[in-house]
Amino acid sequence: MPLARTAATFVSPIVESRRWLKGVQFRDDQPLLNLSQAAPADPPPEGLRRAMAEAVLHQTSAHLYGPVLGNDDLRAALAQQMSRHYAAAVTAAEVAITSGCNQAFAAAIASLCGEGDEVILPTPWYFNHKMWLDMQGVTTLPLPVGDGMLPEVAKAEALITDRTRAIALVTPNNPCGVEYPAALLDGFFDLAKRHGITLIVDETYRDFDSRSGAPHGLFQRDDWRDTLVHLYSFSKAYRLTGHRVGAIAAGEARLFEMEKFLDTVTICPAQLGQIGATWGIENLADWLAGERAEILDRRAAIEEGFAPLAAKGWTLLGTGAYFAYVAHPFEASADALAQKILTEIGILMLPGTMFTPEGAPEGQRQFRVAFANVDRAGIAEMITRLASFDG
Amino acid sequence: MPLARTAATFVSPIVESRRWLKGVQFRDDQPLLNLSQAAPADPPPEGLRRAMAEAVLHQTSAHLYGPVLGNDDLRAALAQQMSRHYAAAVTAAEVAITSGCNQAFAAAIASLCGEGDEVILPTPWYFNHKMWLDMQGVTTLPLPVGDGMLPEVAKAEALITDRTRAIALVTPNNPCGVEYPAALLDGFFDLAKRHGITLIVDETYRDFDSRSGAPHGLFQRDDWRDTLVHLYSFSKAYRLTGHRVGAIAAGEARLFEMEKFLDTVTICPAQLGQIGATWGIENLADWLAGERAEILDRRAAIEEGFAPLAAKGWTLLGTGAYFAYVAHPFEASADALAQKILTEIGILMLPGTMFTPEGAPEGQRQFRVAFANVDRAGIAEMITRLASFDG
Repeated sequence: MPLARTAATFVSPIVESRRWLKGVQFRDDQPLLNLSQAAPADPPPEGLRRAMAEAVLHQTSAHLYGPVLGNDDLRAALAQQMSRHYAAAVTAAEVAITSGCNQAFAAAIASLCGEGDEVILPTPWYFNHKMWLDMQGVTTLPLPVGDGMLPEVAKAEALITDRTRAIALVTPNNPCGVEYPAALLDGFFDLAKRHGITLIVDETYRDFDSRSGAPHGLFQRDDWRDTLVHLYSFSKAYRLTGHRVGAIAAGEARLFEMEKFLDTVTICPAQLGQIGATWGIENLADWLAGERAEILDRRAAIEEGFAPLAAKGWTLLGTGAYFAYVAHPFEASADALAQKILTEIGILMLPGTMFTPEGAPEGQRQFRVAFANVDRAGIAEMITRLASFDG
Repeated sequence: MPLARTAATFVSPIVESRRWLKGVQFRDDQPLLNLSQAAPADPPPEGLRRAMAEAVLHQTSAHLYGPVLGNDDLRAALAQQMSRHYAAAVTAAEVAITSGCNQAFAAAIASLCGEGDEVILPTPWYFNHKMWLDMQGVTTLPLPVGDGMLPEVAKAEALITDRTRAIALVTPNNPCGVEYPAALLDGFFDLAKRHGITLIVDETYRDFDSRSGAPHGLFQRDDWRDTLVHLYSFSKAYRLTGHRVGAIAAGEARLFEMEKFLDTVTICPAQLGQIGATWGIENLADWLAGERAEILDRRAAIEEGFAPLAAKGWTLLGTGAYFAYVAHPFEASADALAQKILTEIGILMLPGTMFTPEGAPEGQRQFRVAFANVDRAGIAEMITRLASFDG
């Protein structure tokens, strides 16, 4: 008797870590530092809120079903923005809007895989990717990262079987923070094309990449549409997490297939998120540049301030976008330490075990630090508290 | 080699029928009468819109991630409303909010079924249910309805195997309109319980039921939590289709399983839809009573006005909530007639083939008429035009 889909996977780490918080009392001089989730904590800029409110009050279509693949104006605006960003020619018909970027991944997999097929995920992985593959009867082939927390093309190639349908990369990476070099993405694209499989590239954190210009040249290739599925999120760029709006770029034939899935799961993306995202693309480029500078400054604060932790045996494995990924110096596993760190020094971080296959030893030595919501003072405080922790 | 999930199902009938409209020219004296989809065409009442706009402008949490299973205040309000409506005691922990009612069904199936399991659907079925089962590797066991377009318990029982996990009913029915008698639902509940399977009851159109009081007694049973999964939609009640907000009622253990699916597919329901639904529950009971009266009046207009069609050989098989389900008198199949009716007399209706298994003869004789958006004058016009159509 097969397991039900949901019985084939684990409880969401975010949901589980929220449960850890229940009943924990924090000292007045040591309030909770929540480094568990990468999400804005402030509302979007006032102009965007006013545009949304205006639509709520006066635009009938803001309350009605829209097209399954998203509103035409947002698709056109995104295609134009992507064409600029990647110095390429992406059309409105090659992008679709989803109810958040997790759903974009789910739709991509539904269009690519059946029961017993395989997808390669570098480890540490983004847990919701692993959960979706589990719930779809797709076998995850873990690809442990190598130097610089980067996956290696040759090692990926060694994993490919006749059941492998895709390789899914996240850059800038969640959880490791690292930005994948353009040449590495080219290498993975060539690998995927050579084997007739799909390269999924999730750029949820694209807007916080430290590099200027196009982070890769995949969209400049004439042949991208047959091999690449690209995922994006408006949640972080314009602080729209509560409105659920993400995006996919892919060949039209693949979007046509994904449309069946999206129609059946949510019918259409929520209208107000789409209205906000469209307004954001048209009006918030400068504002977003400031947001990016702030995030890059916080990243620098971690890198510059890490010495006291290094002195205690911690290692900074990667930083970038919203995340740092670190190794701890203790005997105990990260699992056990995570709850001890929460109750003793008031810091909530997710252990590496939540990003690695069950039993993988490296996960027990690692933590993800989602620092995007914490300013320089908070980062200094985090470092002080962690340096005082003796396991 | 298995098919990808999306390749295992058909294109959404709504999406396909929208494509039929492309390039069709309607005569000035015969504008399009769109009877293809059951959705409000007007915005929600002004008070609800003002409450949403207020939240957009001044409530930070309206823009941030919320709990996977929905906001506490909406869960509490819905539980209280359901307890009143069903004369039962449903708690906030036993309801969850989803990104529309299609997603509620998807989550329920994900928590119940694995590859190769089976679910019984009465036919005509709601096509998105069939599409989701196809895409999940779940085999649909079609249960053709009997007298009065109602499914029969004994016939369902004969279909059950050791791989059957659930029976899914829709009442008031989509596409047939009929309201399932309380005793019939009791019979299906007992059947499901006897076989250790789940009874899914989708009451998306609950608020337009012609009966007063609780439409069934399932929630009054002490044992409902182990057997029943109940689905609901706020889309129709408060005109929130564009905001994607539906709901599930089930035992807490089952909601815990569904939470994995919902987290991975959308993280949380969109906040503004939830804010609108909460405001609606608290303020729109009287307004909704008026909406219901209007829908019941349109239903009466169809029943009262049907004689000219009956004279031409049409049969009214069922009416209720947003739908009438009819049989046509022609030789040609409903598939071919649907496009002919569209181009010749400007009426868009979905053919029965979209609600029945491939090759089922009854589907070729039937149409669904989604009349909710059409007033008495429009219904009279529809009847006149159809009566003039000679196949």
